[in-house]
Amino acid sequence: MPDFAEPLARLITEFKRLPGIGQKSAQRIAFHVLRASRDDAQHLSQAILDVKDKLGLCEICNNISDGQQCQFCRDPARDQHTICVVEEPHNIVGVESTRQFNGLYHVLHGTLSPLRGIGPEQLKIKSLVDRIAHGSVEEIIVATNPNAEGEATAVYLSKLLKPIGMKVTRIGMGIPVGSDLEYADEVTMWKAIEGRREI
Amino acid sequence: MPDFAEPLARLITEFKRLPGIGQKSAQRIAFHVLRASRDDAQHLSQAILDVKDKLGLCEICNNISDGQQCQFCRDPARDQHTICVVEEPHNIVGVESTRQFNGLYHVLHGTLSPLRGIGPEQLKIKSLVDRIAHGSVEEIIVATNPNAEGEATAVYLSKLLKPIGMKVTRIGMGIPVGSDLEYADEVTMWKAIEGRREI
Repeated sequence: MPDFAEPLARLITEFKRLPGIGQKSAQRIAFHVLRASRDDAQHLSQAILDVKDKLGLCEICNNISDGQQCQFCRDPARDQHTICVVEEPHNIVGVESTRQFNGLYHVLHGTLSPLRGIGPEQLKIKSLVDRIAHGSVEEIIVATNPNAEGEATAVYLSKLLKPIGMKVTRIGMGIPVGSDLEYADEVTMWKAIEGRREI
Repeated sequence: MPDFAEPLARLITEFKRLPGIGQKSAQRIAFHVLRASRDDAQHLSQAILDVKDKLGLCEICNNISDGQQCQFCRDPARDQHTICVVEEPHNIVGVESTRQFNGLYHVLHGTLSPLRGIGPEQLKIKSLVDRIAHGSVEEIIVATNPNAEGEATAVYLSKLLKPIGMKVTRIGMGIPVGSDLEYADEVTMWKAIEGRREI
């Protein structure tokens, strides 16, 4: 016998498909929705559809956007000379959280990965080159992930853009602030020594 | 400047209102929905509305149900002589997971709590008494939570139902199976000694 009435079982199944949500969390959330008001459920339901129906990609930087251009690209106060290149739209949140970076972004929507058949054509690299050709960009900061694929992508971009006179930089790697040296792995430790700065 | 386009920000806010989901999880889930197919988003959205629109309470036991009676009450194979009383519909899952109990259920939808103004009239106690009066019930197993309010409710039910000739039992309390005696608190330890059984 099923533990739950059909609509409830179906909602639990749907929640379980979301990242980081297991059986117990899915049950808990489903019962929460069941107890919530019809209005609250309606708002959640509509919000899910709206992200699919009302959002697209910014025509300039490929960030998620509710208009032709995202909030960064249409803001004249942002520094037009620097572009921070990230893998995915959600990586922008991390950079913005510093409240220090005031340039523009470019979202690649992935990283180079020959094993998975992802080459430069599958990424938003051509539009980055076009931006550089037609804009006043002076520096490209490559903020892809610090793993093999992110590094390969950074090296590729550097080889592609330096010959056309662009300054290409990579975000610094080293010991995370507030952590303990004892727990740093050897690669991070070496990156920290390599990236040392005069004090 | 907002980090996210409006529909995305709204979905993150909606997800954050769900139990156990913080800012980071909400962002992760919202981006997952954004990347999912329109069909998948539609299914999730519809499932949320369906639990509000298609479910009600079983007219017999007050469990969540998609019909007038829940799957337990309409199953003639369930033992009609035993009723397990629980606080909330989701507690039934825990009892069913044992695959040992084959009786019926009764959902109180809360516990007695004078401090919060919840007396017997606010709980589904009258319908339990009616079931006993008109059925062939022989035993009431009280499976409310092992805390002050759950205990008070159990004692109340016992005092109410024993005079009308009903056998009222309480689920056993003691050391959880697989745990370590060292970590048992003193009340649980006492309950375990009190509830000892001959071997």
